[in-house]
Amino acid sequence: MASAGEVMNNKQVILKHFIHGAPKESDMVVKTGSIMSLTAEAGSNAVVVKNLYLSCDPFMGSRMKKFEHPDFVSFKPGFVSIGMPGLTAWAGFYEVAAPKKGENVYISAAAGAVGQLVGQFAKLMGCYVVGSAGSKKKVDILKSKLGFDEAFNYKEEHDLDKALKRCFPEGIDIYFDNVGGKLLDVVLLNMRLKGRIAVCGMISQYYLSQPEGVHNLLHTIRNRIRIEGFVVFDYLPQYSKFLEVVLDLIREGKIVYLEDIVEGLENAPAALAGLFSGRNIGKQLVVVARE
Amino acid sequence: MASAGEVMNNKQVILKHFIHGAPKESDMVVKTGSIMSLTAEAGSNAVVVKNLYLSCDPFMGSRMKKFEHPDFVSFKPGFVSIGMPGLTAWAGFYEVAAPKKGENVYISAAAGAVGQLVGQFAKLMGCYVVGSAGSKKKVDILKSKLGFDEAFNYKEEHDLDKALKRCFPEGIDIYFDNVGGKLLDVVLLNMRLKGRIAVCGMISQYYLSQPEGVHNLLHTIRNRIRIEGFVVFDYLPQYSKFLEVVLDLIREGKIVYLEDIVEGLENAPAALAGLFSGRNIGKQLVVVARE
Repeated sequence: MASAGEVMNNKQVILKHFIHGAPKESDMVVKTGSIMSLTAEAGSNAVVVKNLYLSCDPFMGSRMKKFEHPDFVSFKPGFVSIGMPGLTAWAGFYEVAAPKKGENVYISAAAGAVGQLVGQFAKLMGCYVVGSAGSKKKVDILKSKLGFDEAFNYKEEHDLDKALKRCFPEGIDIYFDNVGGKLLDVVLLNMRLKGRIAVCGMISQYYLSQPEGVHNLLHTIRNRIRIEGFVVFDYLPQYSKFLEVVLDLIREGKIVYLEDIVEGLENAPAALAGLFSGRNIGKQLVVVARE
Repeated sequence: MASAGEVMNNKQVILKHFIHGAPKESDMVVKTGSIMSLTAEAGSNAVVVKNLYLSCDPFMGSRMKKFEHPDFVSFKPGFVSIGMPGLTAWAGFYEVAAPKKGENVYISAAAGAVGQLVGQFAKLMGCYVVGSAGSKKKVDILKSKLGFDEAFNYKEEHDLDKALKRCFPEGIDIYFDNVGGKLLDVVLLNMRLKGRIAVCGMISQYYLSQPEGVHNLLHTIRNRIRIEGFVVFDYLPQYSKFLEVVLDLIREGKIVYLEDIVEGLENAPAALAGLFSGRNIGKQLVVVARE
């Protein structure tokens, strides 16, 4: 293990080119050629930081595309960043969805980094909570480890409308949307009066050349539904509050946080690409160093 | 003219059958056969009311369809009701869209019963206001009589995205949606950060066998957009406040209310059907009696 003051190989995950579809392992390359010094310049205020973990989040895929927007910058090829799914779950559930005790909450991509926390926050509020995910293993974990009342594998449901009506005979008050597309369309048919849809992500749509059409928006009128998109960066002022409360909850055993840990920076490209095929269970992390 | 105590022909507009598409004149029939007495029963608290006007509103078309929903009842064939577009404009603009001075406001079906008021409310708040409508005459009225800053005829714009970008080079803060469908989809591309879409109606969608798909909901995330449907009946407690304020504004000449008046109950079916082809300018009324 390297420590401050040493000289070592600089292992880097390099983005080879801006991507078009979902990120693939082959869009990145791991390089170890160059030598770097781990010494902070004498007399400067710089410190040397040792990163133990890297975060892998779906939003990183969109930064690998070339697009222009005042609030977002593409990664320059050769640059990797981390996300904050915990604050995302916190802000999206408490601030955007404005939950009330006893409400019916549905979460898609429920075994992901964000969804697992939303479900547990909702249970702590006394809500009835249903999640969907893409494998039997994930569905089992939702029910056995994360305390969801119900869960289903969307890949095995031929009729998603029926699946939702089975889980929510009285309809949905809050939909925490991580996927968008067809599922969102069917959810609109099942929302209760004054229901809220917090749009956190639309992972099913990011890499389609033409996003799917949503046909049931007429239901927003009849049932007075609010659909609201949000971005975690708007809630950074709440970060320390969030951390304080959530770390307490974890210490007290009231919530758990599942992590899917991959060893070694050289495996980061596969871990990132895996997010888009649903490989991970819980938050995807890459261990860069073990101490 | 009949007065209380008389006996007269009972002229009725009868719904012949539940409809499937948009209401057509031929879906209704005017009957004058039966005789009715205009006398209230002696000793009862009943009063005889003389109706001078009938209101024609798009929502009446949906009541002519057969569908089941806890909050709505279909008209029984043979029953007609009135709407309240003024309170709709009031609630949708002030309560749902939550406007701020100087914001950019776009209104579709802007020369209709609701749209014309929303535009004038927005101007009173110091907003920049653009409306669209389906004829040159309506566009002229929006600019010359209703004080809109800009207006365009959507039927003459081959590229609605370009039309919106021309009218809103800095984007839209509030979209008051009366039409839904393709236009809503293009509006999503032009919403500013924290923009609000108040969904009042989707007249372009009501009578399609399959509603159009909306593809650009991903923008709700990036731009933190809120889409919220509403129904005027939820705001009935504000009716007297609304009436007081708006009648004052009309008396002071600060707003006008355009009405499209058709003479005689026998012309009501054509007036109602005309709403769905965009025949009317302003609120559609049918004069039943002149005193």
